[in-house]
Amino acid sequence: MKKSALQTARAAYRPKLPKALQGQVSVKEGAPTESVADQADIQKLFPNTYGMPVLSFEPSSETKNYPAITAGVILSGGQAPGGHNVIAGLFDGLKAVNPDSRLYGFLLGPAGLIEHNYIELTADIIDEYRNTGGFDIIGSGRTKLETVEQFDKGLEILKKLGIQALVIIGGDDSNTNACVLAEYYKKIDAGVQVIGCPKTIDGDLKNEMIETSFGFDTACKVYSEVIGNIQRDCNSAKKYWHFIKLMGRSASHIALECALQTQPNICIISEEVEEKNMSLDDVVKYIADIVAARAAEGNNFGTVLIPEGLIEFIPAMKKLIAELNDFLAHNGAEFAAVAKEEQRQYIIDHLTPENAAIYASLPEGVARQLSLDRDPHGNVQVSLIETEKLLSEMVGKKLADMKKAGEFKGKFSAQHHFFGYEGRCAAPSNFDADYCYSLGYTASVLIAEGKTGYMSSVRRTTLPAEEWIAGGVPVTMMMNMERRHGEMKPVIQKALVRLDAAPFRYFASQRDVWAKETCYVYPGPIQYFGPTEVCDPTTKTLVLEAEGK
Amino acid sequence: MKKSALQTARAAYRPKLPKALQGQVSVKEGAPTESVADQADIQKLFPNTYGMPVLSFEPSSETKNYPAITAGVILSGGQAPGGHNVIAGLFDGLKAVNPDSRLYGFLLGPAGLIEHNYIELTADIIDEYRNTGGFDIIGSGRTKLETVEQFDKGLEILKKLGIQALVIIGGDDSNTNACVLAEYYKKIDAGVQVIGCPKTIDGDLKNEMIETSFGFDTACKVYSEVIGNIQRDCNSAKKYWHFIKLMGRSASHIALECALQTQPNICIISEEVEEKNMSLDDVVKYIADIVAARAAEGNNFGTVLIPEGLIEFIPAMKKLIAELNDFLAHNGAEFAAVAKEEQRQYIIDHLTPENAAIYASLPEGVARQLSLDRDPHGNVQVSLIETEKLLSEMVGKKLADMKKAGEFKGKFSAQHHFFGYEGRCAAPSNFDADYCYSLGYTASVLIAEGKTGYMSSVRRTTLPAEEWIAGGVPVTMMMNMERRHGEMKPVIQKALVRLDAAPFRYFASQRDVWAKETCYVYPGPIQYFGPTEVCDPTTKTLVLEAEGK
Repeated sequence: MKKSALQTARAAYRPKLPKALQGQVSVKEGAPTESVADQADIQKLFPNTYGMPVLSFEPSSETKNYPAITAGVILSGGQAPGGHNVIAGLFDGLKAVNPDSRLYGFLLGPAGLIEHNYIELTADIIDEYRNTGGFDIIGSGRTKLETVEQFDKGLEILKKLGIQALVIIGGDDSNTNACVLAEYYKKIDAGVQVIGCPKTIDGDLKNEMIETSFGFDTACKVYSEVIGNIQRDCNSAKKYWHFIKLMGRSASHIALECALQTQPNICIISEEVEEKNMSLDDVVKYIADIVAARAAEGNNFGTVLIPEGLIEFIPAMKKLIAELNDFLAHNGAEFAAVAKEEQRQYIIDHLTPENAAIYASLPEGVARQLSLDRDPHGNVQVSLIETEKLLSEMVGKKLADMKKAGEFKGKFSAQHHFFGYEGRCAAPSNFDADYCYSLGYTASVLIAEGKTGYMSSVRRTTLPAEEWIAGGVPVTMMMNMERRHGEMKPVIQKALVRLDAAPFRYFASQRDVWAKETCYVYPGPIQYFGPTEVCDPTTKTLVLEAEGK
Repeated sequence: MKKSALQTARAAYRPKLPKALQGQVSVKEGAPTESVADQADIQKLFPNTYGMPVLSFEPSSETKNYPAITAGVILSGGQAPGGHNVIAGLFDGLKAVNPDSRLYGFLLGPAGLIEHNYIELTADIIDEYRNTGGFDIIGSGRTKLETVEQFDKGLEILKKLGIQALVIIGGDDSNTNACVLAEYYKKIDAGVQVIGCPKTIDGDLKNEMIETSFGFDTACKVYSEVIGNIQRDCNSAKKYWHFIKLMGRSASHIALECALQTQPNICIISEEVEEKNMSLDDVVKYIADIVAARAAEGNNFGTVLIPEGLIEFIPAMKKLIAELNDFLAHNGAEFAAVAKEEQRQYIIDHLTPENAAIYASLPEGVARQLSLDRDPHGNVQVSLIETEKLLSEMVGKKLADMKKAGEFKGKFSAQHHFFGYEGRCAAPSNFDADYCYSLGYTASVLIAEGKTGYMSSVRRTTLPAEEWIAGGVPVTMMMNMERRHGEMKPVIQKALVRLDAAPFRYFASQRDVWAKETCYVYPGPIQYFGPTEVCDPTTKTLVLEAEGK
């Protein structure tokens, strides 16, 4: 494997660990816990793993002798920077527990467990991947571990390899499933512990005990680097509006963090759009008004950040999509027989007036996408909609109307960008390198202490790493019951952007100035070797949340 | 102006200078020069600035006393990282010549000279912009300085401000115009010298005396960072082919350099496509065959780099576009009257059979773009074609056919990216920071020595900066006569990728392995504070060219 100069230099980085993990560890148990909601239901579903205490690690002078551990690890779902360091921390932690410990990696996600595809992760392999981005050490995958058949099939290989603990690195769904698996293995007395680790660039796996999911820091810094570069270009050429869509599934954490880092002229926050019951036209009008106000001062340029999930947070669009899904499910064959150029009118004629009006207002390409591109379940594929182009096209139309009415006297020319894959596999920032390594190391201690149904937790992350608090949080503590595919399920509560929390409040207090003036900040690329204020800061979100507490 | 931590830390960087520029300078004159071609024509057009010698600077112990200089500077055309450092080097150089020297900046490109928009660039302003990306210190613009009226209008303000030398920072066209201006001011004895500086991320302004244009290094490093990140994602998820289009106008230097840095599975080089007279179908087949070969080994993923200018280098497409331009120019009204859904067939019916067949083979969206989106001159806007989507759509079709024929047994799913604005205004790499500062400093010496019609030249750039050779090259030396808009014009010869030069030859020797195996390299983000092998390397193109000499 040919390496870049940076890869080679970065391989030598030694991630910083919390004080409690630097030597012998003693485990402090808190009081019994409750789930965040639906306590009775959750307890009933998790009789063996419900109510366990929060665990905190502390430095200890007592030397413990643990037997060797054989563990397995799985990367689940979308890539996030730092996954390799979780595995390296886990590996080093297991070896610190007992040098004869061993670690297996299941290949290409949970499917590797079910299909018995694995490799042993030796020191040579681990060393190749320290401080690198990507999940390529063992690959990842999106198979969901949900059924008893899968659990039993997995157990076969776990038993065969002598694996007594499984670490699942994933997002909210994967950690929910990890807990279901922990409960099941405990129930049948399988002798396999299951530990989760909080991963996702989306930043929506967080709560009182999990301050941030890993990868969010690095991904936001990569996106902010390129957004900053685009803003510098925008402010030099002074002739384009850049519409920039950012990955992040439902929640707008990434867009908000990037806005805090780069101070764009506009950033749409889906959660606010929903809260204020804004229509698509309201969003378009909000943007167009800012474009017009800037144009009035001679500034025919600007930047707009758009969260990937926006469309589904617009209440009226949600209703339209629901009716479209329903209509096409029942009239698919007839619709398919309609001549292409008449399909749009056909749909307009068959929707309720309110939805028909919204559908009619959409640009042709988007309207077509909504009626044609459906997933295997027959649902409209909202994620395929190029929201950045949709918005700029509608803003352009609105401005043309405003021009006729004398409300806009400028030029409007747009460029479009979508950033996602650029950030999911970047080499981890110092923060993510340290945080991930600590999460993995924490998992090894939880395993040595015989715990199951826990998630690795590292807190107080805005302090220097030395002062971080490592420990474990019962996964059931983060759960509530939610309807999924028509059924009530226990799931980890997804964290959307809270409009009453410090990050959004700060953004809201600044955005009118950012809209009118040009206050761009240029964060530049992630640095690994410079002064600590350049290399080590956490996200603005974490800092503001810590200040807001 | 709120600054990021990196901006603040980076402001303190002191660009490295060639030895000759660190103290007193003596100027060594070479032999008289000739233009690269069309000597008689060029000499006739530039009687006052033709044939001047190449100048090299050497350290000197003799102290010269120069009078104070008042100079002006213009940023022309598209942004390129390091422009601010050219201005900072120019400013510092002028102050070193005489502390009473002054510098004016004309705003928003050459238009600022003609329209008399300017600011004085004081030390305070310069300090705000050292080592930063962008052209926002004075803005840039695309107005072409071509007519005597413009020259005279500009002279008014130059005279008024007492400016005796003008530095024009631009690409090949802007430097050509700078030379025309130098010749004119000399002819009329205006008392204003004109000096050019070689700028463009495209890398197509280079020759024997200009090893590279500034900005190419940084832009390629930013693109390679995100390409590397995408490749790591690609190799982790193992389910997508990423089609990545890269800015760079005509020449494929950027795509080639990024390929050398990241080792993608496929990189198309426009100049090779033209040389081999490949059709669009040939290019599609080339890609599809590699997709199929990788699929045969279970690898349903990969990366394809595509230079922005590709379409215009495909001889058959060039012919099609020429006929389309011609046809639509003469039949625009009739065509506009054809019903939308019949326009495609209408065009097919009216083109010559060869071009009709190619047009019929294009995906609908592209065909529509070619017939509808025309520029103010009525020409097809080739740059609007989303080549990355065009190619992936045609590759998908080809693979579907191959599947039926049993020649492809895999999956093909594509993602698309276009990188351009992300790199043009990045903060300059150490190389560009040093190189630009040296180019600006060099310009100040050329001015002090009374030169005009010269371009700043800094050579031997693969050696440490201390050993670089600074000096001046007569712009006429790089010129030849070319047909532009139907007229023969003196222009700086544009440098396309040479298929017989070391960078392409190395790429060609490796690409079959890169196609089949997965040899991705992950360069990571530009580093400013680390070890020299991480922070200071030049482009692979420069290294290979130097080795190939």
